Amino acid sequence: MERLKVGVLGATGMVGQNYICLLDNHPWFEVAYVAASPRSAGKSYREAVQGRWLMPQPIPSAVEALTVEDANKVDAAQGRCELLFSAVEVDKGTVGALEEAYAEAGFPVVSNNSAHRATPDVPMMIPEVNWRHSELIPVQRKERGWQRGLIAVKPNCSIQSYVAPLFALKEAGYPIASVVVTTLQAVSGAGFPGPASLQLIDNVIPFIGGEEEKSEQEPLRILGDCVEGRVRPESVLKISAHCNRVPVIDGHLACVSLTFADRRPSLEEILDIWRAFTSEPQRLKLPSAPVPPLVYLEEVDRPQPRLDRDRDRGMAVTLGRLRPCHVGHVRFVGLSHNTIRGAAGGAILMAELLKAQGYLGAA
Amino acid sequence: MERLKVGVLGATGMVGQNYICLLDNHPWFEVAYVAASPRSAGKSYREAVQGRWLMPQPIPSAVEALTVEDANKVDAAQGRCELLFSAVEVDKGTVGALEEAYAEAGFPVVSNNSAHRATPDVPMMIPEVNWRHSELIPVQRKERGWQRGLIAVKPNCSIQSYVAPLFALKEAGYPIASVVVTTLQAVSGAGFPGPASLQLIDNVIPFIGGEEEKSEQEPLRILGDCVEGRVRPESVLKISAHCNRVPVIDGHLACVSLTFADRRPSLEEILDIWRAFTSEPQRLKLPSAPVPPLVYLEEVDRPQPRLDRDRDRGMAVTLGRLRPCHVGHVRFVGLSHNTIRGAAGGAILMAELLKAQGYLGAA
Amino acid sequence: MERLKVGVLGATGMVGQNYICLLDNHPWFEVAYVAASPRSAGKSYREAVQGRWLMPQPIPSAVEALTVEDANKVDAAQGRCELLFSAVEVDKGTVGALEEAYAEAGFPVVSNNSAHRATPDVPMMIPEVNWRHSELIPVQRKERGWQRGLIAVKPNCSIQSYVAPLFALKEAGYPIASVVVTTLQAVSGAGFPGPASLQLIDNVIPFIGGEEEKSEQEPLRILGDCVEGRVRPESVLKISAHCNRVPVIDGHLACVSLTFADRRPSLEEILDIWRAFTSEPQRLKLPSAPVPPLVYLEEVDRPQPRLDRDRDRGMAVTLGRLRPCHVGHVRFVGLSHNTIRGAAGGAILMAELLKAQGYLGAA
Amino acid sequence: MERLKVGVLGATGMVGQNYICLLDNHPWFEVAYVAASPRSAGKSYREAVQGRWLMPQPIPSAVEALTVEDANKVDAAQGRCELLFSAVEVDKGTVGALEEAYAEAGFPVVSNNSAHRATPDVPMMIPEVNWRHSELIPVQRKERGWQRGLIAVKPNCSIQSYVAPLFALKEAGYPIASVVVTTLQAVSGAGFPGPASLQLIDNVIPFIGGEEEKSEQEPLRILGDCVEGRVRPESVLKISAHCNRVPVIDGHLACVSLTFADRRPSLEEILDIWRAFTSEPQRLKLPSAPVPPLVYLEEVDRPQPRLDRDRDRGMAVTLGRLRPCHVGHVRFVGLSHNTIRGAAGGAILMAELLKAQGYLGAA
Repeated sequence: MERLKVGVLGATGMVGQNYICLLDNHPWFEVAYVAASPRSAGKSYREAVQGRWLMPQPIPSAVEALTVEDANKVDAAQGRCELLFSAVEVDKGTVGALEEAYAEAGFPVVSNNSAHRATPDVPMMIPEVNWRHSELIPVQRKERGWQRGLIAVKPNCSIQSYVAPLFALKEAGYPIASVVVTTLQAVSGAGFPGPASLQLIDNVIPFIGGEEEKSEQEPLRILGDCVEGRVRPESVLKISAHCNRVPVIDGHLACVSLTFADRRPSLEEILDIWRAFTSEPQRLKLPSAPVPPLVYLEEVDRPQPRLDRDRDRGMAVTLGRLRPCHVGHVRFVGLSHNTIRGAAGGAILMAELLKAQGYLGAA
Repeated sequence: MERLKVGVLGATGMVGQNYICLLDNHPWFEVAYVAASPRSAGKSYREAVQGRWLMPQPIPSAVEALTVEDANKVDAAQGRCELLFSAVEVDKGTVGALEEAYAEAGFPVVSNNSAHRATPDVPMMIPEVNWRHSELIPVQRKERGWQRGLIAVKPNCSIQSYVAPLFALKEAGYPIASVVVTTLQAVSGAGFPGPASLQLIDNVIPFIGGEEEKSEQEPLRILGDCVEGRVRPESVLKISAHCNRVPVIDGHLACVSLTFADRRPSLEEILDIWRAFTSEPQRLKLPSAPVPPLVYLEEVDRPQPRLDRDRDRGMAVTLGRLRPCHVGHVRFVGLSHNTIRGAAGGAILMAELLKAQGYLGAA
Repeated sequence: MERLKVGVLGATGMVGQNYICLLDNHPWFEVAYVAASPRSAGKSYREAVQGRWLMPQPIPSAVEALTVEDANKVDAAQGRCELLFSAVEVDKGTVGALEEAYAEAGFPVVSNNSAHRATPDVPMMIPEVNWRHSELIPVQRKERGWQRGLIAVKPNCSIQSYVAPLFALKEAGYPIASVVVTTLQAVSGAGFPGPASLQLIDNVIPFIGGEEEKSEQEPLRILGDCVEGRVRPESVLKISAHCNRVPVIDGHLACVSLTFADRRPSLEEILDIWRAFTSEPQRLKLPSAPVPPLVYLEEVDRPQPRLDRDRDRGMAVTLGRLRPCHVGHVRFVGLSHNTIRGAAGGAILMAELLKAQGYLGAA
Repeated sequence: MERLKVGVLGATGMVGQNYICLLDNHPWFEVAYVAASPRSAGKSYREAVQGRWLMPQPIPSAVEALTVEDANKVDAAQGRCELLFSAVEVDKGTVGALEEAYAEAGFPVVSNNSAHRATPDVPMMIPEVNWRHSELIPVQRKERGWQRGLIAVKPNCSIQSYVAPLFALKEAGYPIASVVVTTLQAVSGAGFPGPASLQLIDNVIPFIGGEEEKSEQEPLRILGDCVEGRVRPESVLKISAHCNRVPVIDGHLACVSLTFADRRPSLEEILDIWRAFTSEPQRLKLPSAPVPPLVYLEEVDRPQPRLDRDRDRGMAVTLGRLRPCHVGHVRFVGLSHNTIRGAAGGAILMAELLKAQGYLGAA
């Protein structure tokens, strides 16, 4: 199979670098185009990331010699790639408009940015949870008059460790009424430079700007149903999130206390549901799909970020410590790799889904 | 005023070292007796802690030349001190029996150990919250036939950052129905050596053995009333605790979501209650009492362990981030210094209270 | 004694905040004037540092209400203070000119900045080592036509842990030919924000821009003699420095291997020299002078940053691990607190020295 | 090719776990036998490591069901494997005798332990440096009357980052007279539990027991020549080592200052030598041999432990910061992964070398 040529917008930033590494030797996609800010334009990718390459592996050889283009010049991408990953790190308004310009010009755009997470005709997806929300794409194309272009976005990294296990329970017939979640989030979630060493040596910070709102609201949209071309958000569930920054490189941990809406499964039933859980990405055998998507760890003190974040190439969600709750019904701990599952890896999986669903082509 | 001669049992361990430092230049108490395990007995205190002194200040000169006695030899303390702080770090059963032997021999014993936290006639106290529980002491003395001896204990370090603010609300007429609390706890809470660097560099551990049970149950006893010589635990409140170990030296942080039992104060009322809160240790002007006991920080990202744990010599509880909760009623963050307020400092404050209340003398 | 009114230029930055804290309740100096960049000017100090106060203690009450002035407006300081500490954090050229403007206007300026460290008529001082270099001040005043103004500077923080012990040996008749020093430096040495958490969790960085040159050259000037109004740098000694950044908040550690120039003392003699070492700040009983200035620790694994940096209010240099060297003659480890002894504290001690030497007044 | 059945002694400890992971899917070797202390004997490997599995990957499925044998029962290994890796973590005397008993019983033993590092007829090897020292094996077998058994050991992990680059220079005709090296060593080098979090959060420790002696002496033996059945240690070189423990999980960094014995190459020549360096493991295409063995990084602030330790599966030595030295001739920084190249990985490479050299069979 010939690989689809893809481009990365914002390729020199931290999320962009993650894309470059995760797409190295990808079976379906091949990085053929990199774009960034005007000051990087014209340099080779190697030159452009000189002194700010943050990955623990060398720059993939297939990319280092590519010339970086100006991400603002939409036309430059024409004929060079057929899919764009957007990892542009500027203000939301600018990114949102830029992504629309690329989609208008015929490019499918899969984005990490929060600009379009609340845009009514844009699907925000965790492929294992709401793969059906890609139904919005025909609506989007029709409303906007796009033939080949589209915008699809991934949600915030903080929610990946608890939305899929909640969904598994809901799908099994146990809808959830409320969730109190406290997250312990890694520094890479803040991009580079993010929190200073001065702030996090011998310390934690009980606040991340804007994160609690995203952690509370985005799951409701993802867990909602597509009805008449719009997402009807989950209306029963209420979420209260407390987000902390901790001195961990990668891996967001969530301590969850939940209350079921009506029927209440036993702990054994919950474990059975999680262990049996599989979903559309697994059925479609998407290259980046973790198998299984949820991994329950028996040890009393797991999951832990450093030990478990890389499970299944950083794409699996690890769970542990399921036990009763004295206030809600049950408690558990979830973990996901924020820069893989929660960012570039999750977006790549979403692109694989869109390809398998037939959306990477003309309407 | 002549200072009371006091002894420290388990003086060479980490909590014992904290006592030695905090009692240096104490206005009421003077360390005159140190005891530890038989292998330290006979050495000078300096020799006994050689190579395992963990405090960031030198050994106080008034203590370094004291000869360490065998803590198992109760008689050795006779005539040498009039109050004992117990920081013995062996199994609960042994510690509990040893503390009883010292009390039987006429010594008031103030303990950090968990052995007697559930013993019906032993008060477990946070002086600002349940100073009245010292009423158990006459009962204890009568039941056990002790004239001068007594046992009083401090609760677990993990609860210090949320029990006092909950109590302040309850006292102001707003009893609380439920609390979901997630703690981010410092490594010093595990004693020495505690968690290995291999376990906590680039990591957090979502489990501390036995800690969640203590964090859920001990507050109920402390918030209860003394009735007919026994504590009747708080019966309305339910607590769900999730305890995490984080790479912080000192300072336990708590993310709290609470629901009021009936009436619900506004955020402004809560702030007013906390700011106005004062209690018996402050009224008695005890030397170690923080003034005020609760400090609310306005900054959006506080309290933080490294920046706020030392407030008022490590004795104040700092609070922040009061805001509504989508599941319970309100949320906040609390912080207390676990080895000062939560251990030796809290026990010293309790001893000061007992002295001011007249319990450090014959019945 | 009435306290001298002093001002802090760059008062809102990290070093400036250190000055504000260290000068709180200083017996000789009183902060009466704070200046910073134009964007802070006009605000109260409290407002100006809102959200970027980095100290583990609250803003001193004597300073929080002071109005921040524009540091570029030299005239604003007239009549408000008689001594200025410069902690301005902009480019060297600008700082150097600004400090000259203040001195020209009659202010003694004691600076942390590197702008004037190589200026021939400006003394760069470690008070215990080259207190005599203040002899440059009359030369400076004469050459520049200044009556009351002066500029004196402190050296780089990286050299504080090894220059004083080397000086003590030289003074005792054992000049040194070569030093190979490897430093492990704290993040606070880089100012705020300094290295990102992403760079230093589970990591060290074997490079600090410009630091090795300063660590090699500045000691030569400090150890030199004042001859005919100029410093003649130490000509025998050669220094090779390797500077590393490590995840430590405060405290620069130096691993030193040295070769004597001619005579070679025994290890016992070296210890005796260090233990007996005292100097001009101690003789003058300057308020910030550590007594003794050098503290040798017997434990095999000391000094350590977290345990020893605060010795004598962060002003003492702690030493340890003196032993023979297979390549040079002897090896040892030195430690000093980089933001106290190595920055604001060292500058305050220098100001105390200048006052005691009579330089804080007209020529 | 059929894989050789191998056993791991001390398989449940930290180094043992590293062997189990590194040998998973090894092209030449297959783990068929695991042994540990008597208290693990009889359990499945999975049970035996329950609660103390420290690797960031799951237990390899080929090993988890193996029954752990008692490492003290030499006979139990007969017929089950043909090569033993020794990672036993008890006292040197016991390990040394145990390894001899296995060799006596006919097993080739490749060891991480320091027991036999100074035994005259035992080769201590870094395969790229002294592959010829396996010449000692026939001597060993003859002296001890062993037919198939042998003992070969790897050196200390602290020296791996500087011995190979020194050897490359010596081989190119530039022998070295002296080395002053300061190491910044990871916590995994101390085994589990190693340094407590209480000791290394916001701290470094300038001492590692016994490490400086090993770092100074072992290189001399490795760089020596085999003459008449004995190693004649390198006699020109003198090494002075200062070893520090830093809060890094894996990766020992060395800051090196060296002086050449006679001729002195230019910096360009040194770079050319290192870049061109290849050796016997590369010529023999051993499966674990890094290609190239030395990787020079151009960036001014590299190598760094977290970013560079995993280069070439953790087997490459990364170098950087080559520059002149004011005391010696040149300076550089070296890094190697201490638990891979410096422990299990280095031992596996040595076993591959011995197999390729024909020593894994009867004499």
